[in-house]
Amino acid sequence: MRIGELSRETGVAIPTIKYYVREGLLPAGRLTSPNQASYDDGHVRRLRLIRGLIDVGGLSVSSVRDVLAAVDSPEEAVHDVLGVAQGAITPRTAAAPEGMERARQTVAELVRRRGWRVEPDHPSYEKLAVALATLRGIAHGEFEEVMDDYAEACERVAAADLAWAERNAEVDGLVERVVVGTVLGDAVLSAMRRLAHVEASARTFGEAGERGASEAEVKGAGGR
Amino acid sequence: MRIGELSRETGVAIPTIKYYVREGLLPAGRLTSPNQASYDDGHVRRLRLIRGLIDVGGLSVSSVRDVLAAVDSPEEAVHDVLGVAQGAITPRTAAAPEGMERARQTVAELVRRRGWRVEPDHPSYEKLAVALATLRGIAHGEFEEVMDDYAEACERVAAADLAWAERNAEVDGLVERVVVGTVLGDAVLSAMRRLAHVEASARTFGEAGERGASEAEVKGAGGR
Repeated sequence: MRIGELSRETGVAIPTIKYYVREGLLPAGRLTSPNQASYDDGHVRRLRLIRGLIDVGGLSVSSVRDVLAAVDSPEEAVHDVLGVAQGAITPRTAAAPEGMERARQTVAELVRRRGWRVEPDHPSYEKLAVALATLRGIAHGEFEEVMDDYAEACERVAAADLAWAERNAEVDGLVERVVVGTVLGDAVLSAMRRLAHVEASARTFGEAGERGASEAEVKGAGGR
Repeated sequence: MRIGELSRETGVAIPTIKYYVREGLLPAGRLTSPNQASYDDGHVRRLRLIRGLIDVGGLSVSSVRDVLAAVDSPEEAVHDVLGVAQGAITPRTAAAPEGMERARQTVAELVRRRGWRVEPDHPSYEKLAVALATLRGIAHGEFEEVMDDYAEACERVAAADLAWAERNAEVDGLVERVVVGTVLGDAVLSAMRRLAHVEASARTFGEAGERGASEAEVKGAGGR
């Protein structure tokens, strides 16, 4: 297909498609004449992957490039590629708050308690410590009381993620699945957690909410 | 304290503090002379909250303003304020992918199956549909197979979140806790899920990973 059809098929504007080709995110089309290129279903699929990572996953163009490079390296050992992909899709945190020593200790204890085989130099290890130190800094340190509830929930989700990824035996597709599942899975988890909050909140505070609230204000409160 | 001490105490630069005051995120200091203001512990706490929401939660300045407005309205019914706060901290999604009708149907079925009392106009309802439609668009539609694992994990986390928030009986503090817990809780969940992935991946693919990998490449793989 020509670039115009690729654009219609995916909803991505032509200049944006050209930008992704220049940035190395999308392979160039096959030249059919000096100034005309042809694209195929692989381009459609790759474009949808790129848009999903950017629009829903919130990744930057350069993070997408790292992730796709990992996806495109099926010759590496699977666990290897997963490591690279996991690193690339772990958002960087800007500032290191106070209390990082203590927070790293808390993470180390959690990791030991859960029996997770993960090294302290994994990017998410530090990211978790930053989140905990920040929580403590704004006087919500007792958040650590619920850490094991979070950990059990994450173990359940991770097991489901791996089983889901494994259903595709081919290594190439497997890595893509893990990457997509990790990035878009975060978006799914975040949205579902808020819906579950509404239900939990309705159960706990429902009567107080109904007393003073108009329908329009209480988005999704929906006490029946 | 003076602004210089407030800056040292929180690690936030003086021009940034002034910017937050101008933007209405931080109350102005108490004037002690025509060009000198005095700040207190409330300012320290609020600044840490602002930085946590921005740096760890990834919120924009305008989202932080909405969230703080909800936090600062203790006169409203609790369930009300929670609704506003939940809406404000739900990230907007840029594009609506194809297949939204079907994805909304899938979300409706999930909500019914779980017995969640939540209306279709809740922002996270649509956000979940966008994530699912995107997953389907890049040929990973079978993700819906694991939705109930995700939902159970989210119910567990939401129950822990509410119990944690409830330990502070005062309404003002309660809303702040829910907001902080929601935003920073996402960061905690995202990081923990990746750590749990490492363990689940080591268990599933560990041997293949160890075969071809150098220590440095496999960040956090840590096969023992």
